[in-house]
Amino acid sequence: MQLHLCSWIEVDDYLKHSPGIILPIGSTEQHGPTGLIGTDALCAEAIAQGVGETAQALVGPTLHVGMALHHGDFPGTISLKPSTLLLVIRDYLTSLARSGFTKFFFINGHGGNIATLKAAFAETYAHLAELDLPQADRVQCQLGNWFASAGVNKLARELYGDREGSHATPSEVAVTQYLYPAAIKQAPLSEVVASSHKIYGAVDFRRRYPDGRMGSDPSLATPEHGRQFYEVAVKELTKAYLEFLNAD
Amino acid sequence: MQLHLCSWIEVDDYLKHSPGIILPIGSTEQHGPTGLIGTDALCAEAIAQGVGETAQALVGPTLHVGMALHHGDFPGTISLKPSTLLLVIRDYLTSLARSGFTKFFFINGHGGNIATLKAAFAETYAHLAELDLPQADRVQCQLGNWFASAGVNKLARELYGDREGSHATPSEVAVTQYLYPAAIKQAPLSEVVASSHKIYGAVDFRRRYPDGRMGSDPSLATPEHGRQFYEVAVKELTKAYLEFLNAD
Amino acid sequence: MQLHLCSWIEVDDYLKHSPGIILPIGSTEQHGPTGLIGTDALCAEAIAQGVGETAQALVGPTLHVGMALHHGDFPGTISLKPSTLLLVIRDYLTSLARSGFTKFFFINGHGGNIATLKAAFAETYAHLAELDLPQADRVQCQLGNWFASAGVNKLARELYGDREGSHATPSEVAVTQYLYPAAIKQAPLSEVVASSHKIYGAVDFRRRYPDGRMGSDPSLATPEHGRQFYEVAVKELTKAYLEFLNAD
Amino acid sequence: MQLHLCSWIEVDDYLKHSPGIILPIGSTEQHGPTGLIGTDALCAEAIAQGVGETAQALVGPTLHVGMALHHGDFPGTISLKPSTLLLVIRDYLTSLARSGFTKFFFINGHGGNIATLKAAFAETYAHLAELDLPQADRVQCQLGNWFASAGVNKLARELYGDREGSHATPSEVAVTQYLYPAAIKQAPLSEVVASSHKIYGAVDFRRRYPDGRMGSDPSLATPEHGRQFYEVAVKELTKAYLEFLNAD
Amino acid sequence: MQLHLCSWIEVDDYLKHSPGIILPIGSTEQHGPTGLIGTDALCAEAIAQGVGETAQALVGPTLHVGMALHHGDFPGTISLKPSTLLLVIRDYLTSLARSGFTKFFFINGHGGNIATLKAAFAETYAHLAELDLPQADRVQCQLGNWFASAGVNKLARELYGDREGSHATPSEVAVTQYLYPAAIKQAPLSEVVASSHKIYGAVDFRRRYPDGRMGSDPSLATPEHGRQFYEVAVKELTKAYLEFLNAD
Amino acid sequence: MQLHLCSWIEVDDYLKHSPGIILPIGSTEQHGPTGLIGTDALCAEAIAQGVGETAQALVGPTLHVGMALHHGDFPGTISLKPSTLLLVIRDYLTSLARSGFTKFFFINGHGGNIATLKAAFAETYAHLAELDLPQADRVQCQLGNWFASAGVNKLARELYGDREGSHATPSEVAVTQYLYPAAIKQAPLSEVVASSHKIYGAVDFRRRYPDGRMGSDPSLATPEHGRQFYEVAVKELTKAYLEFLNAD
Repeated sequence: MQLHLCSWIEVDDYLKHSPGIILPIGSTEQHGPTGLIGTDALCAEAIAQGVGETAQALVGPTLHVGMALHHGDFPGTISLKPSTLLLVIRDYLTSLARSGFTKFFFINGHGGNIATLKAAFAETYAHLAELDLPQADRVQCQLGNWFASAGVNKLARELYGDREGSHATPSEVAVTQYLYPAAIKQAPLSEVVASSHKIYGAVDFRRRYPDGRMGSDPSLATPEHGRQFYEVAVKELTKAYLEFLNAD
Repeated sequence: MQLHLCSWIEVDDYLKHSPGIILPIGSTEQHGPTGLIGTDALCAEAIAQGVGETAQALVGPTLHVGMALHHGDFPGTISLKPSTLLLVIRDYLTSLARSGFTKFFFINGHGGNIATLKAAFAETYAHLAELDLPQADRVQCQLGNWFASAGVNKLARELYGDREGSHATPSEVAVTQYLYPAAIKQAPLSEVVASSHKIYGAVDFRRRYPDGRMGSDPSLATPEHGRQFYEVAVKELTKAYLEFLNAD
Repeated sequence: MQLHLCSWIEVDDYLKHSPGIILPIGSTEQHGPTGLIGTDALCAEAIAQGVGETAQALVGPTLHVGMALHHGDFPGTISLKPSTLLLVIRDYLTSLARSGFTKFFFINGHGGNIATLKAAFAETYAHLAELDLPQADRVQCQLGNWFASAGVNKLARELYGDREGSHATPSEVAVTQYLYPAAIKQAPLSEVVASSHKIYGAVDFRRRYPDGRMGSDPSLATPEHGRQFYEVAVKELTKAYLEFLNAD
Repeated sequence: MQLHLCSWIEVDDYLKHSPGIILPIGSTEQHGPTGLIGTDALCAEAIAQGVGETAQALVGPTLHVGMALHHGDFPGTISLKPSTLLLVIRDYLTSLARSGFTKFFFINGHGGNIATLKAAFAETYAHLAELDLPQADRVQCQLGNWFASAGVNKLARELYGDREGSHATPSEVAVTQYLYPAAIKQAPLSEVVASSHKIYGAVDFRRRYPDGRMGSDPSLATPEHGRQFYEVAVKELTKAYLEFLNAD
Repeated sequence: MQLHLCSWIEVDDYLKHSPGIILPIGSTEQHGPTGLIGTDALCAEAIAQGVGETAQALVGPTLHVGMALHHGDFPGTISLKPSTLLLVIRDYLTSLARSGFTKFFFINGHGGNIATLKAAFAETYAHLAELDLPQADRVQCQLGNWFASAGVNKLARELYGDREGSHATPSEVAVTQYLYPAAIKQAPLSEVVASSHKIYGAVDFRRRYPDGRMGSDPSLATPEHGRQFYEVAVKELTKAYLEFLNAD
Repeated sequence: MQLHLCSWIEVDDYLKHSPGIILPIGSTEQHGPTGLIGTDALCAEAIAQGVGETAQALVGPTLHVGMALHHGDFPGTISLKPSTLLLVIRDYLTSLARSGFTKFFFINGHGGNIATLKAAFAETYAHLAELDLPQADRVQCQLGNWFASAGVNKLARELYGDREGSHATPSEVAVTQYLYPAAIKQAPLSEVVASSHKIYGAVDFRRRYPDGRMGSDPSLATPEHGRQFYEVAVKELTKAYLEFLNAD
């Protein structure tokens, strides 16, 4: 159930039996020579819709652009500043809390979003308390990083070992191959790939990771792998969503 | 060509022959008892992709949530404050200008976004000038409101006369019916519909427009109408984009 | 009745019979070689005072500086960023709403203010709702652009045809000549004047419009024309104010 | 020489021989039962114009609304938050510094503005340094509080002794009587007037100062006194402006 | 009684008999060739603790970094922008007001903080009023500048005459020598020292005050002087705190 | 070497051989019935000074107040909003980067700071890049959470097993007992202690954790344990600092 495909009357009905909504968030950033710029958003969106169907939960519109400042030296990257993303999340949740939603489950496709999202949750709890919304102190946010769920990690380890890396990984590339087979890219990938550097500013990042990959070999990805990752992620995040929804 | 389905290397190549990008922006807001909450985003997204294909232009990720504060008293509406949307647009355009893009064509599906977008363009021009980006003073933004293009207006007048109204209109509902036939809604619509009231705050809006429609009769919409609107809008906005791209 | 010439006790009395106030807003920006930098503020201020007298309405202090970033490459221009102007309007209206005013009628002398003002109205409605002021959901803002009223446009067309242009127009210059005859300027004006360019950043604007005029011939202006424009504008905006004041 | 009555070409010429501009700033706030709400702005504006004429200096548009949050419980008061006023000053000075002005002399009519103005000057110096404007490190702001100049204080002491008080003072009321004789108010004033309380929030302020006066007896004011205050203030601030302008 | 050395239960008890708290604020900025960068914070912290012990008052954590933008061209200086410091003070006081504190006494060691602190107090009163905290309109802030208290000034005049100067003064250096004898510095000090220049931006400041001192001769300082200054300041500020605490 | 105990000339010298600085950050928040409100700041400060001495590194002033909004329902807690803390970190690092520092090592005592600090680092890298500081793209921040270092965790496990808990832990209480033996508290602690709840807003937090502890038994702490934790933390963080300093 996508929020965007409902009428407001259907949302009104939904709220009578559930206060939960799933919000997919990704990023618009380079993913190496063969990865899609939308990888993080596309994966989060598809998995969120899968979870929404399984759990009979509403799924909000995808936040396509997140915190990707460190990728900013590669063309095509779009990033919000953390201070902007804080406000975006605050505005989303304030709007939805006003409607009566109190359980916000973010399905996230990008590690770089995690810190700012957590900061935004704290900012929002305090903001809602200041607004004196009746249910302000019942609002709860939870972060579900699909790429970090146990089953996904296990599968990645089995399929790719340490060639999974940490950005432009074969696992996320596989999911996009499964979802968008027409957009599978071919490009030469150097055998040696930079890894293990810390992440600082954008110019520094590109200096250290010249083709954008971080220790990964995305040439290992296949659409069939992608299907497996997708299914594992949907299954695990559905369970996590339902536990969150039903918890006190 | 969707930005999200490209690699950064493809974007790099694209920028060698074109500085233009299309950015779809909609809204997440009530559209009457039968209209989809995502109407404005879904229409803008589809039309933008149509224009992108026709004009061989990159299309960025859809801004699903815009300025819909006045719809905030209906469940399911999500809105950014204008002050937040200003920053979002500034961050998008700063990121893309850094990549080398200078021609930003927004395909917009929501009248309520227009004022804030125009304010954001001015804010951004000044921000980029302060950053001393080499091409800062060549950056240009243009707004293409699909629902206000001449052909769309003409067709709406022919099909619906004054039952087109100004929100939850049959024309926009028709486009979503064409795009998402499985999500066509049935709901009783009162014969008499409020119209002609000015728009102020959210509580006031719902008091004046109790079912969310503004003078419209969306029951007139059909998927076939939607196809016609879509095609006219793609044609006219493609022309507008190309003129913009090629202008000094 | 100027707010600045009242005591607080008089304002208290006024509020017992009227919740309306007129707020003039202009701009401080180049108006071509012969136009006054204060043109937009001076016109708005005088017309607002005329409307105030006719309609027995309070007139607040003039906002002399608006959104004129695109004129920033000409000396003497002062502009607020849109994000600043949003806050200024929010603060003005919050102060006045706290006093009990609910009907805010802006008499505006500058096209460049319109988008930001509309965004600011939306921002303010939401802000007031968050503050839980008792009358928050009755607050209404309306924009009266004197230069765009029907009678003014008709008169400009009659007097100047297409030499009216769109910035540093003979009509606005005429009003300032009527109001400030000692400040009438003489300067050579090129026969040919740039027109029809879109407005982007400040450096770009000056490149396109080197003397600051946009398609206008302000040498046609006379103080007597100014008187006529003034009277038509006062009459039409008085009517608009009273309709606004008395509407639900 | 008022900036608002100049063309941009005249400003361009002025900048060839002077980098100085005078900016009047007042407030829109209650001034007791007989004082005008615009007192601080009207005084600052008139004195600034007097100084401008004497010193052949440009005078910018009056900032009518300043920091008057503590008067916010009296109707008719309009205030910017300090955080907003900071941005307004930053935007004014950034615009004017871009034109080439470097010497900013504020003629201020309101004690409540002083702290925020000083903070804004510091904020602006740092902002301009970040922008890399060529003359950023030569920008200087100075504050001239007309009501605190030596001659004004001496005259007030002679005329009113300790009935001058500190808000809605006879000296400032006298200046407005001189400038706007048609707006002289009559209202009963209690013999006893609150004084010596510290200033905290708006509700607290009105509790302590129920009619708005702070230790003052504005019934002592006369238009002729006003003329004397005006002349002394113009003379002293002209001297201060010229010293500032000519200092390193 | 330092807040940092209490448990929350002790704070709960304290609030049953006192709503007052002392907040030391200093700065992290150059203090000439021999003064400590932490001078203003170290003095404020020690004096605040002395006052806290004498007056049996809670003392909050020291705000080590204040508004020192004008010292920014000397290495080691850290400054908040005034706009940031406003928010910091607002957040501190909002947190503490929520706990039940209403009397905030700032012991300040840096003249450059005064303007921004006063602006922040006004900002905070309005913010708390908007939050509808029960005791919002009883919140009071007072500023105690130890270096400006009568006894300190008298002592400085006696000990140093006009070699006290106005920055990196022997009096403040003496206090740090008393507090941190192991950190007494020796460095050559030019006989002639710049003085009497106004303060503008950071580059300008260093140009005018090349070694950082403003008219002072810190070589006159001794630890024993420091002890005297400390004792006088604690005595006078204790009195000021208690008067503030007990006032209406 | 504490920055606060240096002169600017000593900082100038230091920068000739090292670009590194240690910044301690804690929090001002409830730590259960017996823990000190300043626990996180006191631990971070002491450990940072220990590291500074061992590594011959400058240590900046302690950020006593961090992100503790979720503890806000307990008296004595002071918190910055994440959006404020972002700006504070940005201002600190911008000041210090201007001095020439490029390696910023935060020694952090509070888990609740981590997300906002990481967001702030990203915000700052982008901000510095916009300022065009010469060394902007070499600026690096690293976070050292003393409580999460391997040796500390090992020791806590040995000493306390699962009675370490996650807030108001015996390990952090032990460190404060070692540092401030005079401030050791006695208070009854319930046998059963809440644990394992997620953290949302402040009211919710206190509902779930009524005495402030999260699964911990701070009665196990001793000053001697504190000494061991302190020494292990100093040793491990010194190593981490030096690796960071010497890395590319």
